[in-house]
Amino acid sequence: MDLLFHEKDPFAPIQYSYRVDEVLCHRRTKHQDLLIFTNPYFGRVLTLDGVVQLTERDEHLYHEMLAHVALHAHPEPANVLIVGGGDGGTLREVAKHDCVRRIQLVELDYEVIEASREFLPTLSTGFTDPRVQILEVEGSSYIADSIREFDLIIIDSTDPVGPAQSLFTPKCFSAAFSALKTDGILVGQSESLHFHQPFIREAQRDLRQVFPLVDLYTVPLATYAGNWWTFSIASKSHDPRSLAREVRVPTKYYAKDVHHHAFVPASIYDELVGKY
Amino acid sequence: MDLLFHEKDPFAPIQYSYRVDEVLCHRRTKHQDLLIFTNPYFGRVLTLDGVVQLTERDEHLYHEMLAHVALHAHPEPANVLIVGGGDGGTLREVAKHDCVRRIQLVELDYEVIEASREFLPTLSTGFTDPRVQILEVEGSSYIADSIREFDLIIIDSTDPVGPAQSLFTPKCFSAAFSALKTDGILVGQSESLHFHQPFIREAQRDLRQVFPLVDLYTVPLATYAGNWWTFSIASKSHDPRSLAREVRVPTKYYAKDVHHHAFVPASIYDELVGKY
Repeated sequence: MDLLFHEKDPFAPIQYSYRVDEVLCHRRTKHQDLLIFTNPYFGRVLTLDGVVQLTERDEHLYHEMLAHVALHAHPEPANVLIVGGGDGGTLREVAKHDCVRRIQLVELDYEVIEASREFLPTLSTGFTDPRVQILEVEGSSYIADSIREFDLIIIDSTDPVGPAQSLFTPKCFSAAFSALKTDGILVGQSESLHFHQPFIREAQRDLRQVFPLVDLYTVPLATYAGNWWTFSIASKSHDPRSLAREVRVPTKYYAKDVHHHAFVPASIYDELVGKY
Repeated sequence: MDLLFHEKDPFAPIQYSYRVDEVLCHRRTKHQDLLIFTNPYFGRVLTLDGVVQLTERDEHLYHEMLAHVALHAHPEPANVLIVGGGDGGTLREVAKHDCVRRIQLVELDYEVIEASREFLPTLSTGFTDPRVQILEVEGSSYIADSIREFDLIIIDSTDPVGPAQSLFTPKCFSAAFSALKTDGILVGQSESLHFHQPFIREAQRDLRQVFPLVDLYTVPLATYAGNWWTFSIASKSHDPRSLAREVRVPTKYYAKDVHHHAFVPASIYDELVGKY
């Protein structure tokens, strides 16, 4: 028998299909359709509303690159806010840093956290960390209510439609600026350099209206349609390209040379965003 | 009506599907199944034996990176051999260089060239260039029969199974070394850094048995399952990372900074191939 998962990504011009060995969990949460299945190559796969969010095999590429670039660009990140990220992968990476004293994870859908703790043990290791506080609220409102609180805000969201849409607005970028300390950094996933260039261009331009230092870096993913994944990073004072600290945390992919290499060459950036 | 092309790539753990607006050409050549269809996002798409070979939208990424890195690492490439590449994309890029005096294109399946000339006008521009000689023979045998003839050999093959398998052997690498002039360069596509690491590792190690300078660079493609595409490059004397000439050819993606950026960071290379 061939059981297949056909991804239904409305923003991708290619549809991906995965073989399914076993369905471990399939439920309708208050917010979305949640499915976890096993695939012979990728291991366990989490999907939300029909779109793959992570696989055990390649999630480290996404989570390490989302967390460690900003964490190493900041000399002493103590207070970190993660918006989204209910699977725990970003939290696991942030928690590797001893200098981090407090981690707030704001996840609208608590059932994602519960499913991850039950079915994704390699991702959900951080939830029991005493530095962690979990809040089941909407991310952009939480950011808007915070003032000079965080060294680092990490937007680990689903695609910028539905609940996640409010995280990618000029209003939210301004609120994030206010919620960050005077040398804080904001970083977020910002979709595929192949498929979503207009979105990335707009996000970069909107961030530049608010932050003095804005940049774009990428990682090639094995999953996620469009694969050439971007992260938009915006900083109040520290240059995101420079490492302010040595790399001492254990990683599979992130490294000092990977940090430098991840930023897109100027010729690509200028073509995409326009010269400033 | 939804007409879909389901890719049948035996080496990919994800299967890709493309919407088909119109089938322009579907024929059984002497060697393979050849299909050209149109897709609303990618434009015209060429498939061989059920696997996507190129799309009009993203083929420049592959063809520019396959051709121009080696062409710019060599100070004066005059005689170039292209093995495969019947669609004409690599030929189009090579032909942009005025210093190239002779281009031999060795393609086993002449019907691919014919189909490209009829249905892929943006790719097949080079076939009428007076410097071009087309040979309908098997690539590895042709390489084996040549001695100190070429400045550059470009392997633009299908996946290393069936006809293309013989191009990725230690025997063929040795023959290529002999077929190159004393400062010649060999470059070839070498599959996905996500899905085919054992293949890449073996190719890199085999090349190092023959060539003094061996390296690995990548480009993120929108199509090709595994997307993070690698090129293995082997050189007799010129360092592939250095540009021996200015970039004067018109390109959409390749540029001086892209050339340098394309080579994989040492931490990734050492993890993949092992330190030498």
